[in-house]
Amino acid sequence: HKTHKIAVIPGDGIGTEVTPEGVLALKAAAQRFGIDLTFEDFDFASCDYYLTHGQMLPDDWKTTLSRFDAIFFGAVGIPDKVPDHISLWGSLLQFRREFDQYINLRPCRLMPGIKSPLADRQPGDIDFYVVRENTEGEYSSIGGKIFEGTERETVMQETVMTRTGIDRVLKYAFELARKRPRGKLTSATKSNGISITMPYWDERVKAMHASYPEIDVDQFHIDILTANFVLHPDWFDVVVASNLFGDILSDLGPACTGTIGVAPSANINPEGTFPSLFEPVHGSAPDIAGQGIANPIGQIWCGAMMLDHLGHEDAGKAILDAIESVLAKADPSVLTPDLKGQGTTRDLAQAIIDAI
Amino acid sequence: HKTHKIAVIPGDGIGTEVTPEGVLALKAAAQRFGIDLTFEDFDFASCDYYLTHGQMLPDDWKTTLSRFDAIFFGAVGIPDKVPDHISLWGSLLQFRREFDQYINLRPCRLMPGIKSPLADRQPGDIDFYVVRENTEGEYSSIGGKIFEGTERETVMQETVMTRTGIDRVLKYAFELARKRPRGKLTSATKSNGISITMPYWDERVKAMHASYPEIDVDQFHIDILTANFVLHPDWFDVVVASNLFGDILSDLGPACTGTIGVAPSANINPEGTFPSLFEPVHGSAPDIAGQGIANPIGQIWCGAMMLDHLGHEDAGKAILDAIESVLAKADPSVLTPDLKGQGTTRDLAQAIIDAI
Ligand SMILES: CC(C)[C@H](C(=O)O)[C@@H](O)C(=O)O
Ligand SMILES: CC(C)[C@H](C(=O)O)[C@@H](O)C(=O)O
Repeated sequence: HKTHKIAVIPGDGIGTEVTPEGVLALKAAAQRFGIDLTFEDFDFASCDYYLTHGQMLPDDWKTTLSRFDAIFFGAVGIPDKVPDHISLWGSLLQFRREFDQYINLRPCRLMPGIKSPLADRQPGDIDFYVVRENTEGEYSSIGGKIFEGTERETVMQETVMTRTGIDRVLKYAFELARKRPRGKLTSATKSNGISITMPYWDERVKAMHASYPEIDVDQFHIDILTANFVLHPDWFDVVVASNLFGDILSDLGPACTGTIGVAPSANINPEGTFPSLFEPVHGSAPDIAGQGIANPIGQIWCGAMMLDHLGHEDAGKAILDAIESVLAKADPSVLTPDLKGQGTTRDLAQAIIDAI
Repeated sequence: HKTHKIAVIPGDGIGTEVTPEGVLALKAAAQRFGIDLTFEDFDFASCDYYLTHGQMLPDDWKTTLSRFDAIFFGAVGIPDKVPDHISLWGSLLQFRREFDQYINLRPCRLMPGIKSPLADRQPGDIDFYVVRENTEGEYSSIGGKIFEGTERETVMQETVMTRTGIDRVLKYAFELARKRPRGKLTSATKSNGISITMPYWDERVKAMHASYPEIDVDQFHIDILTANFVLHPDWFDVVVASNLFGDILSDLGPACTGTIGVAPSANINPEGTFPSLFEPVHGSAPDIAGQGIANPIGQIWCGAMMLDHLGHEDAGKAILDAIESVLAKADPSVLTPDLKGQGTTRDLAQAIIDAI
């Protein structure tokens, strides 16, 4: 059978602590399900690499990484070393764009044993996906500054949305909604205030809906949508959003499930022309890096999403089940401090690996 | 003593039901504190006006409204009648811009008797202001569409930020933080992704901080900031944000206090060159309009903010105290259905007026 070649990029901060655990969990699942995975580590896409080489990536990064079936990514960015807009635009955001990973898929799921900051919510009450457009929109680098250094100083930045770019993310979201039991899609908009791009987004949603008449579609302006994530998280099934709105909703959603430290995300090129990239939502967390106490669940859950993507949904599910069973046990000697335990990254990862 | 001339614009939907109650509450406070207020009603800035006249406002609206000291505004927009980007850009957003109401001030305050959707939060735990830039930024009407009707169709919209525009809202926010017991300011940014305008915003925050060294300043990217509103609402004191980010945060903040239906907002021209405008956050709520059950507290609280602005802080405080005392009593025969009571708009308003 086919071998899947995985590039491992730990990046910065706790990224370097959680990726090895994620790899161990993947190896355990691979062994159980008879899947062939090979791993290769890379030190680029980190601030240390930047400080040595003056750039975040080697010149031939695209050729190098194109040989892999997927990228297993930790986290990037240490603002005290390198400004975020340099480290991020020079790595993660470039991968997303140049590998045309136009889907950013992020589950928001209330897990057993994790306390939601919302009152009276139980596992099962919150279980939806954010589908974020991942290559265009508000994250454009077009724009600049004029009248620099004077009172008239002005900066401009262009939001760019294309029919192709919008339609393909909508299609993915409608298809996903079709597979879900409730078959419901919510579109994030702001067409009452952002008067050019967002009405166009709405127009494309309406056009695409015509091809999926069985899907129940609603839309909310982003301001009230964030409010509804808090007030009515049970309303949502699949939420589709532009790059910026998706970024916001996919931090807020996991926050509502109490799991910002354990949420995964998948940057997907659905056609498989380029490798897809799997990274936890949590980031490099410089404040707790180096102490061995980072929660490895986000990274391990990323492994589950990666296996799903590679066609091994049974193995992906086994990892997710293992995570849930360890969380449900709620053993404080195993859980990391963010989950009110005294366990280390290693302890928690090993418990999950044992469960796999 | 001075007479304050107030223009009343009920607008659409429940705006027409709550503004008269707001006026009655203002009259009660004016009588008690010996303040001279006169009111004049206007039917423009409503969708019905648009359907009759083909425009949201009469040609001479600016001259007409400039004669007033403040505008007491209900809500605008009925998307089934007139698309939001027409009704809003043709009224509220135009007022904000042409009357240079560059501050949008929105309190987020957990009130007695109102249940927060957040677990274990008590009145006093959440009490902060969002200061939103209200005239520029992401709400620009510069941009357009190219290759219309083809596969290459592309829309662009410009975000525009000026040094003047940013500095004046930052100054207001720093001054406000200085008056607050904790003296803390949080800046909303997204400089890791929005790589031109937001790093500039950060730069101006840093420059302005030099003039206010005693203020404790921090910054969060908007994604994690929305998460922290839910996870740690007690961290915040004054939050300053761009037009779009402020829009989001000032819906999410009130949602976290369970009070989206009762939150007020002030659109302020601090120099007093133009009238300032006071409007509830809730909008026109077409779904419950015409039933007499809309919650009038947002509108009445707007009256309190208006009196503060006109220099009558004692009268403003009396209105807020009256609101809090009625909420604390929690009499279901008085509270409106959104607060789990059976009262009407009239019942709840009258209880507050009696308390004033
Ligand atoms: C109605 C809409 C244009 C407006 C805005 O986005 O500013 C509203 O949401 C608000 O916050 O006052
Ligand atoms: C680090 C940052 C540029 C990035 C983004 O905004 O896309 C992050 O917040 C994310 O969501 O992956």
